[in-house]
Order: sequence, then C-alpha cells, then structure tokens
Amino acid sequence: MKKTTKKEAAAKPAKVNAPNMVIAQSGGPSMVINASLVAAVLTAQVARKNGAMGKILGARHGVEGLLNGDFIDLTSLPAKKAEAIALTPSSALGSCRHKPDAEDCKKIFEVFKKNRVGYFFYIGGNDSADAARIVAEEAEKEGYPLIAYHIPKTIDNDLRSCDHTPGYGSAAKFVASALMGDDLDNRALGGVKIDIIMGRDAGFLTAASALARKRPDDGPHLIYLPEVPFTVEKFVADVKAAMKKFGRCVIAVSEGIRGKDGVPIGAKLGSGEKDSHGNVQMSGSGALGDYLAGILKEKAAVKRVRADTFGYLQRSFPAMQSESDFADASFAGQKAVMFAVMAACGDKSVPVKGTVGIVRKPGKKYKVDYIALPIKDAAKFTRSVPKEFIAKNGHDVTPAFIEYAKPLLGDLPPTEVL
Amino acid sequence: MKKTTKKEAAAKPAKVNAPNMVIAQSGGPSMVINASLVAAVLTAQVARKNGAMGKILGARHGVEGLLNGDFIDLTSLPAKKAEAIALTPSSALGSCRHKPDAEDCKKIFEVFKKNRVGYFFYIGGNDSADAARIVAEEAEKEGYPLIAYHIPKTIDNDLRSCDHTPGYGSAAKFVASALMGDDLDNRALGGVKIDIIMGRDAGFLTAASALARKRPDDGPHLIYLPEVPFTVEKFVADVKAAMKKFGRCVIAVSEGIRGKDGVPIGAKLGSGEKDSHGNVQMSGSGALGDYLAGILKEKAAVKRVRADTFGYLQRSFPAMQSESDFADASFAGQKAVMFAVMAACGDKSVPVKGTVGIVRKPGKKYKVDYIALPIKDAAKFTRSVPKEFIAKNGHDVTPAFIEYAKPLLGDLPPTEVL
Repeated sequence: MKKTTKKEAAAKPAKVNAPNMVIAQSGGPSMVINASLVAAVLTAQVARKNGAMGKILGARHGVEGLLNGDFIDLTSLPAKKAEAIALTPSSALGSCRHKPDAEDCKKIFEVFKKNRVGYFFYIGGNDSADAARIVAEEAEKEGYPLIAYHIPKTIDNDLRSCDHTPGYGSAAKFVASALMGDDLDNRALGGVKIDIIMGRDAGFLTAASALARKRPDDGPHLIYLPEVPFTVEKFVADVKAAMKKFGRCVIAVSEGIRGKDGVPIGAKLGSGEKDSHGNVQMSGSGALGDYLAGILKEKAAVKRVRADTFGYLQRSFPAMQSESDFADASFAGQKAVMFAVMAACGDKSVPVKGTVGIVRKPGKKYKVDYIALPIKDAAKFTRSVPKEFIAKNGHDVTPAFIEYAKPLLGDLPPTEVL
Repeated sequence: MKKTTKKEAAAKPAKVNAPNMVIAQSGGPSMVINASLVAAVLTAQVARKNGAMGKILGARHGVEGLLNGDFIDLTSLPAKKAEAIALTPSSALGSCRHKPDAEDCKKIFEVFKKNRVGYFFYIGGNDSADAARIVAEEAEKEGYPLIAYHIPKTIDNDLRSCDHTPGYGSAAKFVASALMGDDLDNRALGGVKIDIIMGRDAGFLTAASALARKRPDDGPHLIYLPEVPFTVEKFVADVKAAMKKFGRCVIAVSEGIRGKDGVPIGAKLGSGEKDSHGNVQMSGSGALGDYLAGILKEKAAVKRVRADTFGYLQRSFPAMQSESDFADASFAGQKAVMFAVMAACGDKSVPVKGTVGIVRKPGKKYKVDYIALPIKDAAKFTRSVPKEFIAKNGHDVTPAFIEYAKPLLGDLPPTEVL
C-alpha cells in the first residue's frame, strides 16, 4: 500500500475536530431560495476541505427537521446536482412556519449535540430570522456553542437589513411579466381587470407591476398598496377616471390592502387561519378580487370586470429567475458561510449571531455589497414601501421606485402593439 | 420623368383589380394568435405583389370592427414590427365575443363593399368559426362575392377540425410549468393545493398539467376534467388516498367540472354572466377553488388547503410560447391566405368558405399537415377529451394523452429535488 505523502495529507479534509453545520429553509418558498442553499453548501464544502467545517447537514422542513433530527447529508452533494437544485424553484429541503420556543430549543440543542453541530444557517424572511435569533439566543443562555446565521429570503422585499431581498427580483419579474400579458389581454377585450398580488404587509411586489409599462397607455393603470389606506370611494372614482382616459383599466392590488382601521380587507373576507407567527392566511383565495370586482360592477357601472389572484405562481414559477436576484441569493448564501467561519476564527468584525445584509453602492451603475449584521436587524419587524416610492395620487409608484426596482428584475420580454 | 420599363411594371403590385382583404381576431386571446395574424399578413403581402390581392386591412375588435369599418391598414406592415407583433401574446387587433346576425351581416357587407373587400379571415375558436360561417353564408345569400377563411385558435384545444389547435400548446406549456413549480411549493409546505385551470367544456388544458410530472411522486396527484362527472364523495376519497400515499396532494381541476346533472359547478357558484354565444363566464373568480378547499377542510380533515385559479395568465403570459405551437399558428395563418387565393383562382380542391385543419401524420416522429376544410367543420360544436385519454380511475390521464400532448408543449424547464 502506497504511503500518504505530506502533500496529499494537506489536501485532505481536516481530521473532524471542526464542528458540523446544519442549514435549513423556512417560510414561503421563492424562485431562488435554493440558490442560497446551494451556494452555502458549496462554500461550506470548500471550508471543510480547509478544515474549518465538519459535515454539512440539511434539515428537512426548517425547525421541524431540527427538532426531530431529520437531516440529509449534503457534505458530498455533487456539483452537477447542486447546480440543478440551485435553478429549481421552491425550498428543496422543505419548509415550515414553526416559531420555536425555549422548550423547542432545548430539544434542538440535544439534537445538535448528538450531531456535533456548531454552525446553524437559516434561510428565510423576518419570521425565519426571528426563529434563528431565538435559537441563537437560547443557545447562548444554555451555554451551547453555536454560530448562527440567517440568510435573507422573501418575495415581499420587506427585510430591514437589505436594500432588497433575494427572492424579490424574480417574483417581481413574474408579476411584471404577468401584468404585461394581462394588459395586452385587456387591450383586446376591454373592461376592467383586477390582479391581486402577494404581499401581506409590504407593497413592493405589487409596486413591481409598474415595470410592465412600456407605452404611455400601458397598464397597470392603478396600483394599490397596503401602505396607502384603501377606500371604496377613491377606488370607484379612480376606476371611473381611468376608464374615461383609457377606455379600459388594469388594476394591480396588493392582497394586503387595508382600510383606515388598518385591518387587511382580505383578512376580513378570508378564513382567518393563522400560522404560529400570528400571520393571517390571505393567499389561496379569490375573495378579495371577487369583492373588488363586485364593487365596480355595482358602483362604477362597469359591465366587464374580471379578477385574478396570482397566488403561488408568483413565488414558485420555474425558469423565471431574474439574473441579479439569482446572484444576490447565491452571494447571500456564500457570504453567510464565510462570515460564520470568520466568527468561528474569532474575527470580531462579524457577529456570531448574524444575518447577511445587502447594501446598494452609491453611483449610477447598479452594484451591491453583502455585509455581516446582527441577526436582530432582520428579525421580526418588517419595512414598508417608503413614501418616496409612492405617488402622491395614492394609486401609483414614483419614478424613484422604478429606478430602484429595474436592476432587480432585469430584462422583460419585448412586446409590440398595432 | 423616367419611364417605367416593362420589367419594373411587372415587379409592382397589380393595378388594384384584385379585391382587398380583411382579417380580424375574435374570442379569448392566446399566446400565438398574433403569429397567425402576422403570417397571414406577410403571406398576403406576397400575394399582393403577385397581383392576387389588394389592400390588407385589419379590423379592430373582430365583428365590431367589421360593423363600423374600424380598419387598420397592414398592407405595408414592416417585417420588423410584424415579427415583434408575432411574438407578443394576446390579440393585437383587439377581440370581441359578438355573434353576428343577418342584420349585422348586411351592415358588414356595406362596409365590405365600400372597402372593396373580397377576402375575409377570422382567427378564433369554434364560436369565431361560427361567426365567420354566418358572415360567409349570409354573403352567399345576399350575392356578395366573398372568400372567407377561419384560422383556428383556442387554448381549449376543442376544435373538431384540428388534431390540436394553435394556442393550446403554449397555454399547456404554461399550465405544466405552473404545476411543476406548484408541486415543488407543495413539497416544501405540505397539505393540499388545488389549481383551477381554464377550459369551459373540454379538459385538454387541465389534462396538460400531467406533463409537469418527472418523478414518481410528482404532482398533480389528481386531475379532474369536465368529461368525467364530479362527485364530492369521490373527490374526498381520492384526496384522502393521495394524502395517505404521498403525505401531500396537488390537484388540477378544470373550471368546467360538472356534476351528474351536467351543469358546471363553477357556473352555479359564479355570476351567471353570459356572452352572446351563450357561454357562461367562469374565469376571473376564485369561487370554485374556495368551494373545493372548503369541502376538503370539512370532509377530508386536511388542515392546510390552498387554492389558486390560474385565470388569464395561462392564455396571455409573455415569452412562454411553445415552439411547435408558434409554428402551427404561423402555418395556419399562412395556409388560410394561400387556400383563399387558390379558391379565388377557381381551384375546386379548396372551399370558398373554409377553415385550416391540422392533421397529425402517422409515424413515430411528430409531423403535421395543414389542410383546407369546409368552415362548418370548425364551427359551433366542440370536441371533448376522448375516452382513450382519460384514466379509468376518473382522476388522471393515460399515457396515450402524454404521448399526444408532449410534442405540442416542447421542452419544460429542468428541476431537481433533494
């Protein structure tokens, strides 16, 4: 038998003193959440080769997989399969909407201990960041050594820690594309078309519908965000004015629009079903669209009114990834692992309980930086569409929003009219 | 002034004795109906150069444009703009759902006479073919010389004159893609997902959801077509069995499913709004999805049930054209003009009131022929999904359907699971 040379030994993984890592996905899927997962895993594979990391475990269905030790070993995930996973929408490890409590955390640390887990990565939105924060803080309380990083993802684009959130650009591209097609459909058959778009509290995704416009008379002609109190009177007046101006009307409406009382109208119409983070279920029902269509038939005397609710298509449609969104998601995953390894090496410039922030660099050309921030910066609280992005008339976006969103979506398909 | 040589004169359009043509679009838009329009116009431009045709007019909004002479001159439509139009979804000339009567036809012939119209092309489904048939037959009665061709289009795939109809392949590609993404979404979050798919009477588009499957446990796990009487009892039992087998369930449901009484369930739940062809409006409402979700929550004890209604996205989404569908639509437009010119030249092998039929050639490799048929073959009556395409269990399609549909959709995006 051939003896191992010094050089060969150096190329081998370090002799397993480095802690193992667990990565999981949580909350609503997106078209690029797997790009984050894959980038994190591939970066960890490199870190492992350099001795900074042990096994790479994926937990099935977020916190649920952590609780019952339902792990899949990704240590040797082949590059080709990894690439295919990265391009696949939805959460390849499965997801959940489970908010862990102190009791859950104790169970999780038992599982972690058994599996020698020292790194924990959680990909998701603000609720997922909060779940990761809870796990990380409980670990500190319990004296369990854990480096925890949240990797940002949400089609809602409502994380306070990011200029824009991975997942948003692709969903926004879907929404803008859908509105382009739907506007052409409305040109052909006339009347009013209402499109209900996801976004429980923040209107960023609905706002992206504005990027569908290429010609002065292109829809959406009206855009309603949760950030602007919705009244039936203004809605009817807006539609009447648009019908007069364009002879037809395409309307983008956030599922989260709310009256002056602050309660989402869709939630009043819906089942009232809540997840463990206290979020009311709103998607997966045509109730809001039907309600608004009914108002227009009755009060705006529009004969032909149709309403569609885009539903899950806008977060899981395959082969619709925006290029820059895919890059953001990949970098977020990669950087999280790099920051975590730096923290493990005692680098005080990065937190041990962190999240990856995305910062847009000043200047005309679109460029971003990925930075390490404390995990609490992404957790729990969300951000809304800021005032400078909302038109004064209350039913449109500003040019500043278009400028902000355009590089996130990338090119949209060309269309032409007669 | 330079004198025109004989050679130059021959290259010019014939001196306007050839009749003008009018082309229009009707019914629901599709992703490739403009490909038919553009191919017909470009073919007519060639025919015009050869003296067989005069001006090329497009009527806005189908019969409505015919009635009020709302024409756009496409005689010199530039090739570059034509190409961009061909790739744009929805009906570039506008559409309508107006069924002409004898009185309408008299008005139309006045407009035709004034504009020297001798060729009439109408792109649409069975109702549009019927409208074109009425115009053509009234013209014969009135002694107005008219060659009329219907150009087939419908996402429903229910024309009796075609092996498959232009518009279907692209809509089917959208539906199959959507189900692929939605199935991955359901893998991540579990429970039951219901997707309501267009198709008032024929289940072809819903059946196409089956092409989303790549792996043995991929959804849709249940497929309900209007051709199979729907009962709540079977539905609940099917879902329970699928939940037991897969731990989750994705369901594709046609908007046209009907009980044993033959009345569409969606129509009972909807507004009852009808077009002039007597078709009840069913799309643009989430009522059927919500109804089915309610049944499962109540009777199948499924906790998480979501329902999406795909709506107009499946017929108008941009940049989703299937390659073979685009080719079919283009050839149908081209052939219609060629058949019409042949009829004008007295060629008895083609009718003067015709439609373009699509025939699949026997053999392993997918190949089609485009043939001239009497217009009545496409008009009014539709075809349903044949028995050999419906699985015996009543909630799936057969391998014969997959084989039939596969070349019509073309390649679907690759996906991978962990």
